[in-house]
Amino acid sequence: MTNEATNAPRVLAFDVFGTVVDWHGSVAREVQALYPGVEGNAFALAWRAGYQPAMRRVMSGELGWTLIDDLHRLILDQLLPRFGLDRLSEAERQHLNRIWHRLDPWPDVVPGLQRLKTRYTLCTLSNGNIGLLTNMAKRAGLPWDCILSAEVFRAYKPDPATYLGVARVFDLAPSEVMLVAAHQDDLAAARACGLQTAYIERPAEFGQAQVKDVSPDPANTLHTRDFLDLANQLSHS
Amino acid sequence: MTNEATNAPRVLAFDVFGTVVDWHGSVAREVQALYPGVEGNAFALAWRAGYQPAMRRVMSGELGWTLIDDLHRLILDQLLPRFGLDRLSEAERQHLNRIWHRLDPWPDVVPGLQRLKTRYTLCTLSNGNIGLLTNMAKRAGLPWDCILSAEVFRAYKPDPATYLGVARVFDLAPSEVMLVAAHQDDLAAARACGLQTAYIERPAEFGQAQVKDVSPDPANTLHTRDFLDLANQLSHS
Repeated sequence: MTNEATNAPRVLAFDVFGTVVDWHGSVAREVQALYPGVEGNAFALAWRAGYQPAMRRVMSGELGWTLIDDLHRLILDQLLPRFGLDRLSEAERQHLNRIWHRLDPWPDVVPGLQRLKTRYTLCTLSNGNIGLLTNMAKRAGLPWDCILSAEVFRAYKPDPATYLGVARVFDLAPSEVMLVAAHQDDLAAARACGLQTAYIERPAEFGQAQVKDVSPDPANTLHTRDFLDLANQLSHS
Repeated sequence: MTNEATNAPRVLAFDVFGTVVDWHGSVAREVQALYPGVEGNAFALAWRAGYQPAMRRVMSGELGWTLIDDLHRLILDQLLPRFGLDRLSEAERQHLNRIWHRLDPWPDVVPGLQRLKTRYTLCTLSNGNIGLLTNMAKRAGLPWDCILSAEVFRAYKPDPATYLGVARVFDLAPSEVMLVAAHQDDLAAARACGLQTAYIERPAEFGQAQVKDVSPDPANTLHTRDFLDLANQLSHS
């Protein structure tokens, strides 16, 4: 019944974009409301598609260390002409860029986290910056015990410094930390560092029009439908 | 009525040891309970007295970057023989050292923070490490929006990188951040960086036997009795 015997994690570290919050739906809805002529779905997908290439420019050293807020802005400025929005003022661009601070959680997230919080330490582990994650949590009522981010470790996921950094912060073995994410590549990188892993199905991450493969990978410690299912499965561990 | 007009802060950053938690009373009580022969008051004061000198060894470069958990342990190991506790096992030393994760808040803290949280973003700004501050908050029910620490900025207070780091994290001007602390030197260093400052009276910080000078410094933005008084004064701003 000890942690060692049951192998229960002590800390749950959560990926955020896609896993905790519905970036596609939130961005699409707000863009469509602000600029009715723009196709929100396409705008959201295009903005997010710029994310990995922009991050690679940081990781390769081409760009110095850059907060996600600033990466989002770089991508946005390139995107606006394609959607006929090149006349947006600086204040409008700043407001639009902060959309990533205002993303809505999936409906299971807040009740799921509230149940999990009674037994585990809950933290974020996101490439989003601390300010973004804090503003998002305050608006959405996400009850984190601690906001951890690429900004703390000065490295982006999937750099091992991020996964191992969570264990180090809490003075735990990597196997006492579980990464919770809707992305198999993130989980695979965490597993390679010795963390436990829980996959969360988010079939609508890219919208209803583009259903995502959510098939299980047996390498994960847990495969779960959503945060309530995660709480159920962990309560039996 | 804008923030600029009223000069209201957006983020409140709290010093922790002494300001939020009663380190003296908590350490003295637990040491006395664990080791009835030891004078808890003297033990608490001696442990804390080792803190500034140990931190200076880090800041001078004599020690590399060291978490407060490890500094506490260095001091503890030197302290135990003076109190007749040199026979303590490694496990007992580890347990005792984690006492700093189990400090009790002053009675006004949780209700005060709950009131403040509805209007402000609340974060720690402590030389304590992230894991310590997270464990303390979870045990004591401290409703931080974000845990910030010397560990995030790789610098100890009173280094300007810590105070300015809070403003940078939240993309604010320094004057939109207020440091809340029971120590005038901490507040003076924050003020020199352009932060607003609120002093909290904690006359019993060093125990009942050694009453602390809590006289106001007019340079502070606010002088307050406790966190409820702080909430009252800020609600009129």
